[in-house]
Amino acid sequence: MRFHTRKWIKPEDLNANGTLFGGKLLAWIDEEAALYAIVQLENAKVVTKYMSEINFTSAARQGDIVEIGIDVVKFGRSSLVLKCEVRNMMTRATIITIENITMVNLGDDEKPKAHGKTQIEFVDDRFKK
Amino acid sequence: MRFHTRKWIKPEDLNANGTLFGGKLLAWIDEEAALYAIVQLENAKVVTKYMSEINFTSAARQGDIVEIGIDVVKFGRSSLVLKCEVRNMMTRATIITIENITMVNLGDDEKPKAHGKTQIEFVDDRFKK
Amino acid sequence: MRFHTRKWIKPEDLNANGTLFGGKLLAWIDEEAALYAIVQLENAKVVTKYMSEINFTSAARQGDIVEIGIDVVKFGRSSLVLKCEVRNMMTRATIITIENITMVNLGDDEKPKAHGKTQIEFVDDRFKK
Amino acid sequence: MRFHTRKWIKPEDLNANGTLFGGKLLAWIDEEAALYAIVQLENAKVVTKYMSEINFTSAARQGDIVEIGIDVVKFGRSSLVLKCEVRNMMTRATIITIENITMVNLGDDEKPKAHGKTQIEFVDDRFKK
Amino acid sequence: MRFHTRKWIKPEDLNANGTLFGGKLLAWIDEEAALYAIVQLENAKVVTKYMSEINFTSAARQGDIVEIGIDVVKFGRSSLVLKCEVRNMMTRATIITIENITMVNLGDDEKPKAHGKTQIEFVDDRFKK
Amino acid sequence: MRFHTRKWIKPEDLNANGTLFGGKLLAWIDEEAALYAIVQLENAKVVTKYMSEINFTSAARQGDIVEIGIDVVKFGRSSLVLKCEVRNMMTRATIITIENITMVNLGDDEKPKAHGKTQIEFVDDRFKK
Repeated sequence: MRFHTRKWIKPEDLNANGTLFGGKLLAWIDEEAALYAIVQLENAKVVTKYMSEINFTSAARQGDIVEIGIDVVKFGRSSLVLKCEVRNMMTRATIITIENITMVNLGDDEKPKAHGKTQIEFVDDRFKK
Repeated sequence: MRFHTRKWIKPEDLNANGTLFGGKLLAWIDEEAALYAIVQLENAKVVTKYMSEINFTSAARQGDIVEIGIDVVKFGRSSLVLKCEVRNMMTRATIITIENITMVNLGDDEKPKAHGKTQIEFVDDRFKK
Repeated sequence: MRFHTRKWIKPEDLNANGTLFGGKLLAWIDEEAALYAIVQLENAKVVTKYMSEINFTSAARQGDIVEIGIDVVKFGRSSLVLKCEVRNMMTRATIITIENITMVNLGDDEKPKAHGKTQIEFVDDRFKK
Repeated sequence: MRFHTRKWIKPEDLNANGTLFGGKLLAWIDEEAALYAIVQLENAKVVTKYMSEINFTSAARQGDIVEIGIDVVKFGRSSLVLKCEVRNMMTRATIITIENITMVNLGDDEKPKAHGKTQIEFVDDRFKK
Repeated sequence: MRFHTRKWIKPEDLNANGTLFGGKLLAWIDEEAALYAIVQLENAKVVTKYMSEINFTSAARQGDIVEIGIDVVKFGRSSLVLKCEVRNMMTRATIITIENITMVNLGDDEKPKAHGKTQIEFVDDRFKK
Repeated sequence: MRFHTRKWIKPEDLNANGTLFGGKLLAWIDEEAALYAIVQLENAKVVTKYMSEINFTSAARQGDIVEIGIDVVKFGRSSLVLKCEVRNMMTRATIITIENITMVNLGDDEKPKAHGKTQIEFVDDRFKK
């Protein structure tokens, strides 16, 4: 799994108990999954269709740095199935895992549309073609 | 299911495609579940431990009003299991459903602690005691 | 008065003294009044025209849960007059009251337009028709 | 009346109709009144106690620049009464006016406390003393 | 240099160390420079092209009030060069200075366009013409 | 240069002209530099001291995905000098570059403190020791 986006937990990210607000974390994951799918499918019109069960394994606190990892589970016809792990960058402790985040590729009519992709591509390689 | 909190979808809530950003919606749900649990368990130290699979049933758009419904599935010893539905307030279309959101009651040591509750209480009734 | 929307006061909602920032509270009220009016008048183009005097009765703190109550004072020809109370959900202490919030129904020309409504309607009842 | 703080209306400040969200405007005013009072009373513990009726005179739109003017109405014993006008900086059109915003000076016990001020002071003059 | 916009540092503005988040400060400066240029050039299509080196001279803390000063360095043909200082309003301590912020005036084709201005104008004077 | 954090440009990130608000971009860069320094110096108390000139090379728009690259220029005694490039992830177009961002390592007394580091370390390698 590749970990890219990093977040530094600031007061604006906390719940009323002073730990990372779970809702903020879910929002970060959803954004990361969406942009990962957009890059892979080369289509900006991608929506989150499904997330499998979410385990909040450990808490995070103000000042912690977390990193968000995404990996591909499967390329469907019009879908892309991802998995996600968020961990504390310094201690490597897992904060949350989600085994299946299903993104759907949409056409201009906002209906699912085949994307024609079957494997992970790196943007660098696209430039070499 | 009782629907309380309502949101008016404004530009700050949109993703880059102009529909409601799924991450924002998940953040709203997490906040609603947390405060529902805090009120029921009469303890401010409550954390989200688990969410079951999430189905994004339909999209929402700028100007839509959504309402968030929460119901109790089960009172555990130190946990409270909730379920959630978010719907478009005007059309009643379901936007998202989550069958199991498990909230855990913590003690001052941040460990799970029995909450002693076994059924839904209304704050009004507490005042009548 | 019916209390619907609830907020859990988080660090992002505080002023520099660590109590609920009054401006945030006013923003929450304005959104609640707007969406209440939109639902009643069945028109998304509704603007806040007037608020009567505002009494900040008591403070709220991080971790408090507040709920926002709205009631109808009067249906005008193109206006809807509401009143509002925000209270601490757990203690029932009043935080703020506003006796008159006048919302105006606009037409496509952005001018006041008769809305034809004379009494509170529940969305459920509309579905039963 | 002196106009200081200026805001450039961006998408994040809009309501669902694409005009300036009234709640955002009220939040800006409350912040400006608070900091004006803090500077005058030389005490950071100042709270908004009361706002008189608010007239939303005209709308503002994305890209507009608004400026917020504050003036002193009266120095009370533990209070400071301000008035406020927000206007479009380019057209001078009034957007909102509030005749009385009462700020209260608090002591460490969070109770009203005499502030000993009787007239507007400029920070520059304090440095010249 | 004229100081206009003021900010009251609230928890949402802090970094994880509890001091003013530098990124927030840069965002405030960029907004102030943009709106200053828009007012002077009487054109809403103005972009930040360049900032000279930035010295973070002193820190700011929750509850501090900062004010942002802008002055004109030079009117170019399609550009406007500004300088900026942010200081603590109560102590006059400098927080940050930037000697050159170059704003560029754009035409409808999004290309630099001569603005025809050669000196600072006050909006009041425009109304007197 | 390694590019990690990615952002999907949403309506809340735009200025009033509908392009990416420069202030938002600067805030993202400042956060990325801070967390990069914290990880390298293994100290959470790190502040931005200086940024060299900033060139806004090209604009970014809603829906674009940008990625933020950071590299080390030099390890000082109590400082760490970084450089930064932000680019459009899909087109590789440079959006902004900053050649020198100087972060300072602080001790508990909030004064500069030697950090003892002389080269880039990867967190993975720390775990292998």
